[in-house]
Amino acid sequence: MRTVHVDLGERSYPIYIGSGLLPQAGAYLIKHGLSAKSPHLIVTDDKVAPHHLDVLKSSLEEAGFRLVVSVVKSGEGSKSLQVFEEVMTSAIQGGLDRNSSVIALGGGVVGDLAGFVAATYMRGIAFIQMPTTILAHDSSVGGKVAVNHPLAKNMIGAFHQPEFVLYDLNTLMTLPPREVSAGLAEMVKHGLIRDAAFAYWCKDHAADLLALDLDALGYGLERGVAIKADVVSQDEREGGLRAILNLGHTIGHAIEAVAGYGEFLHGEAISIGMAGSALLAEALGRGGELHKETTAMLKALNLPVVLPDHLSEDDLMAAMMHDKKFKENTMVFIVPDAIGAVSIVKDIPQQLVRDILKQLRKGGETHV
Amino acid sequence: MRTVHVDLGERSYPIYIGSGLLPQAGAYLIKHGLSAKSPHLIVTDDKVAPHHLDVLKSSLEEAGFRLVVSVVKSGEGSKSLQVFEEVMTSAIQGGLDRNSSVIALGGGVVGDLAGFVAATYMRGIAFIQMPTTILAHDSSVGGKVAVNHPLAKNMIGAFHQPEFVLYDLNTLMTLPPREVSAGLAEMVKHGLIRDAAFAYWCKDHAADLLALDLDALGYGLERGVAIKADVVSQDEREGGLRAILNLGHTIGHAIEAVAGYGEFLHGEAISIGMAGSALLAEALGRGGELHKETTAMLKALNLPVVLPDHLSEDDLMAAMMHDKKFKENTMVFIVPDAIGAVSIVKDIPQQLVRDILKQLRKGGETHV
Ligand SMILES: NC(=O)c1ccc[n+]([C@@H]2O[C@H](COP(=O)([O-])OP(=O)(O)OC[C@H]3O[C@@H](n4cnc5c(N)ncnc54)[C@H](O)[C@@H]3O)[C@@H](O)[C@H]2O)c1
Ligand SMILES: NC(=O)c1ccc[n+]([C@@H]2O[C@H](COP(=O)([O-])OP(=O)(O)OC[C@H]3O[C@@H](n4cnc5c(N)ncnc54)[C@H](O)[C@@H]3O)[C@@H](O)[C@H]2O)c1
Ligand SMILES: [Zn+2]
Ligand SMILES: [Zn+2]
Repeated sequence: MRTVHVDLGERSYPIYIGSGLLPQAGAYLIKHGLSAKSPHLIVTDDKVAPHHLDVLKSSLEEAGFRLVVSVVKSGEGSKSLQVFEEVMTSAIQGGLDRNSSVIALGGGVVGDLAGFVAATYMRGIAFIQMPTTILAHDSSVGGKVAVNHPLAKNMIGAFHQPEFVLYDLNTLMTLPPREVSAGLAEMVKHGLIRDAAFAYWCKDHAADLLALDLDALGYGLERGVAIKADVVSQDEREGGLRAILNLGHTIGHAIEAVAGYGEFLHGEAISIGMAGSALLAEALGRGGELHKETTAMLKALNLPVVLPDHLSEDDLMAAMMHDKKFKENTMVFIVPDAIGAVSIVKDIPQQLVRDILKQLRKGGETHV
Repeated sequence: MRTVHVDLGERSYPIYIGSGLLPQAGAYLIKHGLSAKSPHLIVTDDKVAPHHLDVLKSSLEEAGFRLVVSVVKSGEGSKSLQVFEEVMTSAIQGGLDRNSSVIALGGGVVGDLAGFVAATYMRGIAFIQMPTTILAHDSSVGGKVAVNHPLAKNMIGAFHQPEFVLYDLNTLMTLPPREVSAGLAEMVKHGLIRDAAFAYWCKDHAADLLALDLDALGYGLERGVAIKADVVSQDEREGGLRAILNLGHTIGHAIEAVAGYGEFLHGEAISIGMAGSALLAEALGRGGELHKETTAMLKALNLPVVLPDHLSEDDLMAAMMHDKKFKENTMVFIVPDAIGAVSIVKDIPQQLVRDILKQLRKGGETHV
């Protein structure tokens, strides 16, 4: 088993990564001092539940915990205020009190939703993440929790750190291949922003990662989580540095919004976004091989790197102007300096972004 | 002008109390570093707006601030997730960003609702309280913000401290007399828990307070706010001490819930609750004059001290058992030791509480 410590003062917590951890969940709750006198709420979704809920329930019940379970529909649609209220109803009817916890068993959707419930139920109770997707190696670190507003993603949320994260690699075996690749997009992103060797490792071990080899997954998730934890512990509330985690996300979020949520997985959208960031870097004169190197890594992980024709530049630009990352109408981008290093660049001209979108549509072929 | 500092480390903030402060609101926002480049959201209700919104808007606009205004319906019904979502919609459509603030102009309802919007919009932006009720001298200190769930009050919330509180006594002149008395219930509560001299001062100056005399109001609110601030700064997250602020609230909340929200004002319900706590104290052998002394203070402020007949003991007991202040099914009460001092007493037998309710229905006459 691998353990990564997220260093956040009194809000520090460990991330346990290994195979076969879910059947030991009860022992982990006890180890972390959770009270068996209070009920605990498991939030999961209807695609995760059939595979993994019983294992978790048995382990917790054997350890003496009383459980309330809320199974939401799989998909981004569950990150809504309506589903949030339904989960709150389960929590109240189940008698959760201040010593209770909310346990997220699932991917980023369940983690963000359950985390926002934990952050706000009685003004905040304990939260435990049990991620079941590769993408959730990203979403389970940093304490960002949220639901969506019909007008904008992740608009309603909080910072709420978990007590601990229990990452059982075995749960990943049931993940559909497209979800595997999408999750690996965030993994390689962590290499691209802070660790060139890790980015190249992801490319070199792409086949193992895609085949869900336990050793490769364990190492990749440990490094991915450690890089994110390092950034977050230097900037818990997103004052500055933390923004580098948004590499590829400005364009990526616009793609998700314009295509309509569902057509692209988040990881796929940011993969195209990272290809775009590499083009932007080159346009700003930061080395000629960035786009080629970046897209080679992404393609090795079966990820898309070309902007599809049906997403218009006007729509994408409009979506970006709405993006909350634009402070006071200036455009901010995370721009690679090299593989493994990025800068936060303010005041990128809108026209340049438009040009990049054009190039990105042609897979970067037109750039000089 | 009087200033009370709430001492919470890096979350410390001042409360400005005085008459004629609202027309200077713009200067206060500038003084506290709020950016005129970002829009700011005023949340108020339809009973406060006709009297005080224009004054606030003019002051802020003259100081160069762009405003978004959300006027909700007056009353506890606006502390709902539905109204919360509507205010969020205004915030998003108005283009609020991370440098924006949410300004609550109103009583505790508007403060709690707007504060929860501020706590969760983009995971938290600046919050400013401009209280317009006497009760809000309580709700504007301590950072507790929340909306109600259909099954339970204040169930969904956060801790989110304001940047500052601007308390213009002139706004109180339009307050209906019943709201004046209800607000004074929390003021005398602050005396009852920590400061006997202040509790007696409230009784002695009851006529001035009820007549909204500016000197009496200014002093009373300053002391009330200072006592609350002192308790809160010793226990920001309600780990222990802060519970003393709930004197009278266990019975009070049950009365509100059983009567149906609206019949009793919060201050009226806790007034009866404080009379009940005094009876409980006597039953536990803590001095024979507590009930007489306490009710004399409350009656001087035109507050009720007798449990009405139509609220059954069974219903009240059931409501109390649901109250979130019961950890793991034990009953906790805040019990006076004397005027000006209270203890947190755990494991109060349910039967004793039932007896107290019976006495309280008769105005305490039957106690020995
Ligand atoms: N909080 C953060 O810091 C952060 C960071 C990145 C992303 N996110 C959020 O995460 C979400 C995306 O996360 P995600 O990709 O994990 O989405 P997800 O939770 O929707 O999971 C993806 C799909 O896989 C299914 N699934 C999950 N685990 C499975 C398993 N073990 N076996 C079979 N199927 C399984 C789910 O039901 C879903 O259909 C987005 O809402 C995004 O905003 C949050
Ligand atoms: N956050 C906390 O720590 C805390 C503490 C105590 C109470 N509260 C909450 O506060 C709320 C009660 O506060 P409240 O009594 O101020 O209620 P309120 O905001 O509903 O105001 C009472 C009534 O007076 C009206 N009003 C307000 N200011 C006015 C003015 N200047 N002129 C004319 N009318 C005016 C309002 O429209 C309303 O009808 C409850 O929801 C309670 O849960 C919160
Ligand atoms: Zn992401
Ligand atoms: Zn109160």
